[in-house]
This record gives sequence, C-alpha cells and structure tokens, in this order.
Amino acid sequence: MVKRNPHVAKLKDSYLFETVEQRKQDFLAKHPQVTLINLGIGDFVHPLPKSVAAGLSAMAENLSTPSGFKGYGPKEGDKKLRCRIADVLYSQRVAPEEIQISDGILPSLGRLQVLLGANTIIAVQELSYPAYVDTAVVIGQSFDFDQNTQRYGRIVYMKGSAKSPFFPDFSDVPRIDVIYLCSPNNPTGIAATKEQLTELVAFARDRKVIIVYDAAYSSYIRDSEIPKSIYEIEGANDVAIELGSFSKMAGFTGVRLGWSVVPKTLRYDDGTPISSDWSNVYSRLFNGASNIAQAGGLAVLSSKGQEECRQLTDNYLKNARSLKDALSSMGHQCFGGIHCPYVWTHFPGCSSWEAFDNILENAHIVTIPGIGFGPSGEGFLRFSGFNDASKVEQAIENLSAFLT
Amino acid sequence: MVKRNPHVAKLKDSYLFETVEQRKQDFLAKHPQVTLINLGIGDFVHPLPKSVAAGLSAMAENLSTPSGFKGYGPKEGDKKLRCRIADVLYSQRVAPEEIQISDGILPSLGRLQVLLGANTIIAVQELSYPAYVDTAVVIGQSFDFDQNTQRYGRIVYMKGSAKSPFFPDFSDVPRIDVIYLCSPNNPTGIAATKEQLTELVAFARDRKVIIVYDAAYSSYIRDSEIPKSIYEIEGANDVAIELGSFSKMAGFTGVRLGWSVVPKTLRYDDGTPISSDWSNVYSRLFNGASNIAQAGGLAVLSSKGQEECRQLTDNYLKNARSLKDALSSMGHQCFGGIHCPYVWTHFPGCSSWEAFDNILENAHIVTIPGIGFGPSGEGFLRFSGFNDASKVEQAIENLSAFLT
Repeated sequence: MVKRNPHVAKLKDSYLFETVEQRKQDFLAKHPQVTLINLGIGDFVHPLPKSVAAGLSAMAENLSTPSGFKGYGPKEGDKKLRCRIADVLYSQRVAPEEIQISDGILPSLGRLQVLLGANTIIAVQELSYPAYVDTAVVIGQSFDFDQNTQRYGRIVYMKGSAKSPFFPDFSDVPRIDVIYLCSPNNPTGIAATKEQLTELVAFARDRKVIIVYDAAYSSYIRDSEIPKSIYEIEGANDVAIELGSFSKMAGFTGVRLGWSVVPKTLRYDDGTPISSDWSNVYSRLFNGASNIAQAGGLAVLSSKGQEECRQLTDNYLKNARSLKDALSSMGHQCFGGIHCPYVWTHFPGCSSWEAFDNILENAHIVTIPGIGFGPSGEGFLRFSGFNDASKVEQAIENLSAFLT
Repeated sequence: MVKRNPHVAKLKDSYLFETVEQRKQDFLAKHPQVTLINLGIGDFVHPLPKSVAAGLSAMAENLSTPSGFKGYGPKEGDKKLRCRIADVLYSQRVAPEEIQISDGILPSLGRLQVLLGANTIIAVQELSYPAYVDTAVVIGQSFDFDQNTQRYGRIVYMKGSAKSPFFPDFSDVPRIDVIYLCSPNNPTGIAATKEQLTELVAFARDRKVIIVYDAAYSSYIRDSEIPKSIYEIEGANDVAIELGSFSKMAGFTGVRLGWSVVPKTLRYDDGTPISSDWSNVYSRLFNGASNIAQAGGLAVLSSKGQEECRQLTDNYLKNARSLKDALSSMGHQCFGGIHCPYVWTHFPGCSSWEAFDNILENAHIVTIPGIGFGPSGEGFLRFSGFNDASKVEQAIENLSAFLT
C-alpha cells in the first residue's frame, strides 16, 4: 500500500484563513440572527471597474468568433501583457522576457518551491503570510513542527531589531539559501523603507542568498519615497525574484491573475541561469493563466483602468486609517495601515485566538489572529480595511462600545 | 551561493510541444512563403459555442455589479459546478465533495506530485503524455535520464502485450506505488475497453497501487460499451484518482478549466484518507480556478452546451477518421482515430524526427514525433484531427502527393 508523504503529514493544521472561516461559520450557526462584519481575510468587496469588466467580457465574446478564438497561449503569458507590466509597473527596470504571467502569488509560490527543491534552506520574517512556510513544508524543506517553539525545524524565522521590530535583523541570520520578504507586509501592514531594502539587497549579495520579494500590496504605496518593487534597489536584479498580483490591485481575487519576475542575471552557483530552470519548471507545471483573465489584466493596466483601480484601493486605505485611528484612541498599539490596508493591533494580556473570539462574540467582527502569522504574532489581531466604508464605521462603533 | 535543484537539472530537454513549435518556427523562417497545416499539438480551432461564451461574459459583466461581484471563491471550486460534473459527467458515481475544480490536467498533475512526494515509484504506459514523467522528474521521483535506454531511472515504463501492443501487460510490472493511464490514449488515440480497465482495477486492488486516470479525451467516446470514466469499473473508487478537463471537451485550452476526483474511500497504508491530504495540499498550492472560467464550465454542462460541444468535437473525430483512412490507404499502419482525434501512424525505416522533418518539408504538415511520447514511439508520428475539415483535406492531398 502507498505510504503517506511525510512532508504533507507535517502540516500542523488547516490553512489559517480556512480555520478562521470555520470559526465564523460555527459562530453563525449558534447565533443566526447576528450580522458579522468581515475585517478578516483581505478580499475586495467593491465590483470591478466597468472598463476592466468590459476587457474581460470582450475577450469572452471574441472566443466565440472565428477570428477571435484562441486556444493554448504561451505558458509564460501574453506578450502584450508582459510588456505592459514591464512598462507600467516596472518602468522598464525588468524586461518583458523576465516576466511570467501566473494565476496569482500562492500558486507561483508552489511552482517556485518545486523549482528550488527540498534541499533549500529558507528564511521568513517572524511574522509572515503563511504560504511561504506551508509550501516549503509540503515540498520537504522543513523538519517537523515543534510544539514548544511553535516553529518548523530547519526553517529560519527572522526576528526584528529593537529599532525596527518588524523588519529582519540580518546580523542574526545563519546560513540560508532563500529569504522571503513581503512589503508592504502582510500581516503588519508596514512597508519597508528604501534604506531597509537596500540593507536587504546588500545582505543577499554578500551572503549569496536569493530574495523572493512578495509585492502583493505594492499598489497601496502612495509615497514615492517608498519602493514599490525590489528592483528599485540597485543590484537587486542579481539576487531577487519578485511576485506580483492583480488580486489586491484590481479585485482579481476570484478572476486569478499575477506574475513573477526572474531576472536573467540571477544564477545558481554553477552558473546556470535560474530563469532557464524556471522556464522549464513553468512549462511542466502550468499551462498559462486564463486568456480571459489576461485580457482583464491589460484593461487594468490601461490608464483608465489604473485610475479606476486607484480610486477603489483608496477606499480600503481610508478604511484602514479610520480603523487605526479608532483602535489607537481606544488605547491599542497599532502598526501599519498607511501603505497597506492592514492594521496590526496589540491586545496585551490575551492570546490571539482569545482576542479573536472576544471581538467575534462581542463586537461581531471577524479578524485574523496574529498567531496564524508566526509565534510572535501572539496577542495581536490583523484588522483589514477591505470592506465598505459603512461597514468599517459600524465596526468602529461596535468596537468602541465593547472596548472602551 | 544557491545550488541548482538536481531534479530539475535531470530534465532531458525542453517540453516536447515547445520543441515542435521551435522546429516549425525555424522552418517558417527559412521558407516564409509556405503555409503550414497544423496537425501537431491537439488544440481547438473552432470558436466556442455562443451559449458558452455568453456564460463566460455574463460572469465577467456581473463582476462589475455590486450584487454580482465575487472575490475569493472556495479553492475546491464552485459547488454548483462540482454538482453538475458529478451529475452530467459521472452520473453520481462520485460525490460533488470528491471533486476539486482545477485550471486543467497539467497543473493538477504538478499538485498531485507534491501530494505524493519524491519517494513514490510511478509506472507509466510506454507511450504516454510526457507530463506524467516530467512532473515526476522535477519532484524527485526519478533517477537520471539514461541515454542508452532513453528512459529515466526508477520510473517504470509499462510495455504492452502481443495481444494489445498499446495497453500495459501488468504481469511484467515490478513493485510500484502509482500507475498513470490515459484513455482514450494520448498519443495512440486508442480507448481502453471495459475488460482492459477491469484488469487495471483488479491489478491496482491486488497490488495496492493508486491509479491516476487521465480522462482528457473521454468526451470523444461515442460507443456506450467503452467506459468514459474509471469509476464505471466496479471497485475503482477504492484505488483511482481521475483527472478531467474542459480543454478538449469544449475548447477551453486557453480559458483553463478542469477537475480532479479523489474518492473518500482512497487511503494511504496508515489509513489516512488521501482526500484529506489532497485538500491540504490543494489549499496550500492553489487559489481556485478563475471564477469566469467556472461560469463557462456551467454553461458547457447545460444541455444546450453539451449538444453544441458534441457538434464541435464531431468535426475533429470526422477529421481523424479521414486522416486514418487516407494514411492507411497510403500503406501506413495506423492506430486510434476512432474514439479520439489522434491517429498514431507508423513510418517504418526512419526515426520519428526524420519522419517529422520529411512531412514538414515536403507535405508542409506539422505533426508530433512519436519518440516524444516514449522510446517505443520511435518510427511513429501522431497526426491530430484538431483542425478545419478543409485544412485536413488539404493535408491529405499534400500527403498523397508526397507519400504515394
């Protein structure tokens, strides 16, 4: 009989966001009269801009015409879309040939783990999107989960310094192969500064480490002094892979579209360009993103699309600031919420899941418990600004009635 | 510096269909005046049925309305679509809860390899779709490629018997964990009979082997005596995973939609249901198929959609029969082409790539060299019926001028 894959068996529990969803459903089953406000999983609530929907549906309609039908496309994606991304989002800092269109960051991470393989030693920020670690575990990069430390063996969890509690202190980091960094960060909502990213690139160059830079929330950065891409840092093209997504930029969480950048100058120790292995793995594991989603991506990157998406995302940033102000005024220490619609909030004296349950039961708000992002997230909750302004206002009222 | 993943380095060459595309482009660069006829990669050429395009574009438009917008959907896919697949395609032989919606068979294979892991010993048909072996190699299930045998070490290549040269002779098969079988088969175009599949299931039950059954071409089976799904065989639910796709059923090669079936009764040797690990791996590696593609899938599975798709696929079957008749009358031994639009044709006395180049240069037809599907494909070409009837007629004229 077939033996269970021991790496998959190591996964300590179900996917964080599914656990939260289950708790929410359990609560609603007991209290069917309650209307919950979702400040949990970061997901768009506003409809797509009309111009973007028009791009999507025009492609769908074209597929039913003899001249417009398209079958298999290039696995790395539509050339026009890759050129637009290089142009609009990277100001030509990377070439279209270095961009692969994907169905989002999560599935790209899975393919990236297959590329890098089980022997890779990875480092993640103490607090990070759980997918880096989870995909590393299933591919075999980790040892078992340690109940005492609440960490997987062999994976390096980088702590912050006293000066920057949420940005890694590289002086502490042992020998590693790959470093995952997300900025603006999920869950803390904090965007790394140019100085911090310069330090990261210098560390990676010095220690011959590959950076995997997750820029999922880069479109929420409104300050030109803060880099939107790792490639704004000199020397990054030799050491960094970047992952991007239309999910939080344009509400494509259900449409599914993203990209990866693997510069031609990035190489293994034997001189093999990583991009050539990536292209091989890509064509073995993926048949391209939906051509309809790709047409939608082109609409998003038009000037009208960019303007409309900016208006949409402005709403979520505004919500995050209201939440931050309100929670701060209630005496809670808050982080983030300026360049990213997440507010990382301290609830001293209780565990994250206790705080989660309290807020769920008393303020009728769904949040994400900080412990789900790493052990030092204990005592924190992530509040998301992804909702209608009216719902966020209501949430603030509920919180203020319960917390003050 | 980071070491190259040795498993990825084992891949012997680029993806078969990309190599063919490259040869085609090289030929066209030298002979720009020639119009080539594509009987190579199996891809739809006819536009989508209007009703299916309407389903796709209605969803795209809905996404721009407050009531119709949808963000993240369930990773396992839309419940209605899973119910329709269980109903329309499986006559309730599997439950909707056992079905996961995917973006196609190729990416499902990659996720399946992550599920099963590097320790798995796999067996493939001597001639098979290269993705089973290629995904097994990158995940680490194989030893190096042996230039003498033209095979990867540790992977078992199952030969046929004298009676059925293209169906595995199980009496020869050593200890394995997983067996990949595709029916109707790519590349030979032959559909396995009920008796053969009964033999397969009995073998798997007896030897405690998991079957991964690739049903990509099942919608081309018009004979009710031939199973369209492995679950038509009694006892298969305890031993078989099935992969299906809308690509060849409805022309979704660019839209991207498929599914997998992992029955609840399938277990590892320690009793763990494989479906529970699959669900864990699925949620770690995939964020769901595009919701627009899923809406299109529902339209395909309506009675109108099914009728229209049947008419479309009838064309390709008719083409395949014309090709088979013509090539046979030219003295070539042909297989398949009845329940699947591929005709597997013997060109004795020359290698597949020689035959490929000959037909490309002299008959101006792109085919797929049999060697790309396994060493015993040497001397064969795969002709595809996926084209316009007029192009296939022209191809037959060209072939007849050149081959007779």
